[in-house]
Amino acid sequence: MKVGLDVGGTKTDAVAVDASGTIVGRVRLATGWGADAVIGTVLTAVRALGAEPGVADDVIRSVGIGIPGQIEPGTGRVVHAVNLGVDELDLVAATAPTLGVPVGVENDVKAAALGAFALHGGSGSMAYLNLGTGVAAGIVSEGSLWRGARGTAGEVGHISIDPNGPLCRCGQRGCIEALAGGGAIAERWARSGALPVRDVFDAADAGDTRARELRAGLARGVAAAVRVLVLTADVDAVVFGGGITALGDRLMSDVRAELAASAEASPFMRSLHLEERVELLPAGSPAAALGAALIGAARDAEGALTHG
Amino acid sequence: MKVGLDVGGTKTDAVAVDASGTIVGRVRLATGWGADAVIGTVLTAVRALGAEPGVADDVIRSVGIGIPGQIEPGTGRVVHAVNLGVDELDLVAATAPTLGVPVGVENDVKAAALGAFALHGGSGSMAYLNLGTGVAAGIVSEGSLWRGARGTAGEVGHISIDPNGPLCRCGQRGCIEALAGGGAIAERWARSGALPVRDVFDAADAGDTRARELRAGLARGVAAAVRVLVLTADVDAVVFGGGITALGDRLMSDVRAELAASAEASPFMRSLHLEERVELLPAGSPAAALGAALIGAARDAEGALTHG
Repeated sequence: MKVGLDVGGTKTDAVAVDASGTIVGRVRLATGWGADAVIGTVLTAVRALGAEPGVADDVIRSVGIGIPGQIEPGTGRVVHAVNLGVDELDLVAATAPTLGVPVGVENDVKAAALGAFALHGGSGSMAYLNLGTGVAAGIVSEGSLWRGARGTAGEVGHISIDPNGPLCRCGQRGCIEALAGGGAIAERWARSGALPVRDVFDAADAGDTRARELRAGLARGVAAAVRVLVLTADVDAVVFGGGITALGDRLMSDVRAELAASAEASPFMRSLHLEERVELLPAGSPAAALGAALIGAARDAEGALTHG
Repeated sequence: MKVGLDVGGTKTDAVAVDASGTIVGRVRLATGWGADAVIGTVLTAVRALGAEPGVADDVIRSVGIGIPGQIEPGTGRVVHAVNLGVDELDLVAATAPTLGVPVGVENDVKAAALGAFALHGGSGSMAYLNLGTGVAAGIVSEGSLWRGARGTAGEVGHISIDPNGPLCRCGQRGCIEALAGGGAIAERWARSGALPVRDVFDAADAGDTRARELRAGLARGVAAAVRVLVLTADVDAVVFGGGITALGDRLMSDVRAELAASAEASPFMRSLHLEERVELLPAGSPAAALGAALIGAARDAEGALTHG
């Protein structure tokens, strides 16, 4: 039995996965704020999972944790997890002694990419494009995450696609994230509401010019991210996940229309069949928690190798 | 001894490489036009190399061929090698029986990427960015080429970075190749001359407005390709090769200035240290021929495994 946690800004999702890869238990709880509370959340979630029917009879062999923020390569150190109030935290050192099993830590988008790959069938190559407050991707080929040299693999959100586009919080103009990031859209929409991107879609449907412009920018940014991922990493499929994908078909039809328009203009683009290579992660899929469980299990396997 | 060939539009470069990876022989000859002449060029080049001093005493164990055009994955079939007058050709079937050794075939940019990686020290990750008539990259990590799912890995030339940019031959607007490709620059410069991109640089130095605009576009396109490669594949270094790099420091200072300007505007870009991560392949390096030799040797190793 392997356990995976997706430690999000508000909720933590935890799953228990059996040897065949089936999810046999799942719990959700609120994430605490700050380093100590995050450690507490992790320990509580694992304990709660262990008490679930279907999990209790088996032994937990590893724990994997997906968390927003940068992870120092090869360590369990999380830095700049600003949404959790964590500036710096060695999550392996802080939890493994209590848990008594190998613990692995990975950036949440990368964990979700591995989980999405497993849910997607687990063969070929795939990019997971996370559409949330920000925009970032994880690239997986034959079950292996492309980690890159210095921690920026998949950071397609900060590729500029328009020198005259909106200013991005990173300082550049026309970044994919400045067009398609939920945070940037909410800021430019500048009206109160719990679901600003949904409000933008509704207002666009009702004919609001500003909302139509923002909505078109979202589709343009997402389509550009798809082109970047296919023309650089040549992944078979691009799977969308993250908060904005709750819009479902309303999002997908906009993105497909944008991809169809560029296929119309360019025989080369047409030859790529991009409209057929994009898809939505099914709503409610615990991709990040599942991916985290796979990462924890890999740590367990490393331990087995190291200790003979 | 392994042999590698870089079959170019006008010249074919051939090298012999010993077991330690040292180039011990090199010949150059004109490339023939059309399928039969290309086959003849390959056979002649290998025979000429075999007669070189320092090569003649050893046995050629494998031949690798880098060639412009698409290579069908896992085969020796070349399609659409338009610069060679080749529409379709199985180069392995056409040469291996005569050569009597395993033959491997790869797209020339991908072969150059492998060769550049070896010349660069052979560790970490690297993208080779070919700046010639077109713009395309090869991505190498720990000695392995990222091949992708459907043959478009590294095709960064057709990523659009400006919806109002010049029309690309692919049908899109503002593609990196429409700004930085030698073919696109020559077409927009529209004056006769054997070295149009060099003419543009000279005219820009002399104050010509149109030339300055084209020259600035080249730097902008190359800098964008570097950002795409680092933000997607997160390679350690981006090494430039291809015809346009004959401009040497004149090109590099423009590209570095462009990267410095975006680092000035964006703390995130500054954190990537892109100016330090770009470099030129040394002039005259037989990167593609060397890479082809490595690909041929890999075919030999596969054969050894298959035949026990």
